[in-house]
Amino acid sequence: MNTTIQEENKSVQLIENNRLLKAAKGEKVDRPPVWLMRQAGRILPQYKALRAKLSGFKELVETPELACEVTLQPVDELGVDAAIIFSDILVIPEAMGLTYEMIEKKGPSFPKTVQTLDDLKQLRVADGDGVAYTCKAIQLVKAELNNKIPLIGFAGAPWTIFAYMVEGGGSKTFSKARGKLYSDPEFSHQLMEMITESTIAYLKAQIASGADLIQVFDSWAGMLTPKQYEIFALPYLKRICDALPEVPVTVFAKGAYFTLNNLADMNCQTIGLDWNMNIEHCREILPNKCLQGNLDPCQLYAPFSEIESAAKEMVKRFGTQKYIANLGHGVYPDTPLDAVRCFVDTVQGL
Amino acid sequence: MNTTIQEENKSVQLIENNRLLKAAKGEKVDRPPVWLMRQAGRILPQYKALRAKLSGFKELVETPELACEVTLQPVDELGVDAAIIFSDILVIPEAMGLTYEMIEKKGPSFPKTVQTLDDLKQLRVADGDGVAYTCKAIQLVKAELNNKIPLIGFAGAPWTIFAYMVEGGGSKTFSKARGKLYSDPEFSHQLMEMITESTIAYLKAQIASGADLIQVFDSWAGMLTPKQYEIFALPYLKRICDALPEVPVTVFAKGAYFTLNNLADMNCQTIGLDWNMNIEHCREILPNKCLQGNLDPCQLYAPFSEIESAAKEMVKRFGTQKYIANLGHGVYPDTPLDAVRCFVDTVQGL
Repeated sequence: MNTTIQEENKSVQLIENNRLLKAAKGEKVDRPPVWLMRQAGRILPQYKALRAKLSGFKELVETPELACEVTLQPVDELGVDAAIIFSDILVIPEAMGLTYEMIEKKGPSFPKTVQTLDDLKQLRVADGDGVAYTCKAIQLVKAELNNKIPLIGFAGAPWTIFAYMVEGGGSKTFSKARGKLYSDPEFSHQLMEMITESTIAYLKAQIASGADLIQVFDSWAGMLTPKQYEIFALPYLKRICDALPEVPVTVFAKGAYFTLNNLADMNCQTIGLDWNMNIEHCREILPNKCLQGNLDPCQLYAPFSEIESAAKEMVKRFGTQKYIANLGHGVYPDTPLDAVRCFVDTVQGL
Repeated sequence: MNTTIQEENKSVQLIENNRLLKAAKGEKVDRPPVWLMRQAGRILPQYKALRAKLSGFKELVETPELACEVTLQPVDELGVDAAIIFSDILVIPEAMGLTYEMIEKKGPSFPKTVQTLDDLKQLRVADGDGVAYTCKAIQLVKAELNNKIPLIGFAGAPWTIFAYMVEGGGSKTFSKARGKLYSDPEFSHQLMEMITESTIAYLKAQIASGADLIQVFDSWAGMLTPKQYEIFALPYLKRICDALPEVPVTVFAKGAYFTLNNLADMNCQTIGLDWNMNIEHCREILPNKCLQGNLDPCQLYAPFSEIESAAKEMVKRFGTQKYIANLGHGVYPDTPLDAVRCFVDTVQGL
């Protein structure tokens, strides 16, 4: 057993509620751990109250004390089995020199985008200090959590970050970003390379700051053809997974059912599943992975009795081992808090 | 052989270039037919010139002479193997009493939406005259085409129309519409029922006006869980397919890879595939269907030599029989016309 693994196991043992880490490693748990993507956010009245006092979303992301506060809110309010650091996947372009704005009710927007090899010369590969504010927030959260539950760190996958940097914001089709893969593969690979290196440095810094598990979000994976995903997404995702042996890694490639078989070989412990995915099929083709997900976030608009039975049915289908209960996507901002509570309580009552 | 089939075969024989209808019926063709979703539209300079003179998109849809003119533009310009009537899937809500606006660069928007059983009382089931302007346009196009190539009619699938009527416009998540399926199944089924009846009457009127093939677009199929799709989408889609024995029917359920096996039993001839779909897998699970698609629309941003090789590779994988060449989605408005021409010419040169 090498030092890394020894340290890792020590960290699992140090944490009081270590169901998340045990499930990810395939160790036996008494019941599945449960948390929600976007649990720190608009579903909580205390988040909305704090947010109303601030200049904007980025102030929250970039002020470690505030990011710490909102990270802990769902832990106190819902008793989830893991915290996830409050941040944004677009801190990486920011650290590379491409700044973004978060526009209320519209989403992220980049005043400048990158389109040519010359544009890339204006960017830098970010080092471990590139997103110091999030790493500082992780340290604060770890101190507050006092090893009660684990803390999840995260980043966007290279293709998803590429999509925003080229497209300039959200899009129904991401046709500019996808088009670039066809019209300028040299530029595309070079930018993917820069994002990948920046992301590895950032995630290593998150782990050094105390993150117990890393999730990589490939939110726009489902936009690519199977072939483009193999050429432009998987190799970079693989490099990230290979670079982080210290902690368990979760890959959430939303919509990428067509590449699940490739994820079986990825050097990661857990695969996140969206609500489209067929549970039994995923168990079959990913027999060695822990699976995470995949309740439809819209299920939480149903009466509580139905949320309860849907959550129970989901756990029954996944099984209680090598499984992390979650939604299939980030919880929607208008979800009733008591519905979220009903979901968490149901899983924790099993 | 019953009268319907006799009439149908007569129509196939009447049409000079009948590759589309033959491919759909599984009859032998010398090469695959090719057309593009959204071929009538912004890719054509003559469309943009006409559109600039008008008050808006809806004027084009609702004026039969203009709809006829833009339907024929890609036939003249690109020499595609089929025309598709210029219209919009949202003419059905309009005919049911729920009006929409088409907002430039934003998309459709409904000033009023439907949310309750009471709201449904304000709507009507549209009859065959509900969208008279599109049926009139079909008659004009048929006269102009003079049986040279077939004309495709179309409508939205009930779930997709429901999504717009409840959500009020496009959405990244369609969480209101999807939420309604969970929170109010009675309302949901009742609205689906009304949409289905209206759509059947509309499509029968299109066929009576001369449409040679019908395509049903379930553009937001990929938003639902497999279970919700089985409960709220498939039964209504099936009713539509069963109601149209006169012509071949194509079902295009975008993103619904999880329900492809169910589409095998659908009473339709052709299944449309988006660019995510694995060709060989689809051939395997849909052995009796003609398949349509599925080049990534972004492939048309590549150099011509690559468009050519990608189109050839696609046809090789699908095979030349029981196959209709197309993109996996509507052609994007900024696609160079010569790239579209390259795609069409490549398939026609096989």
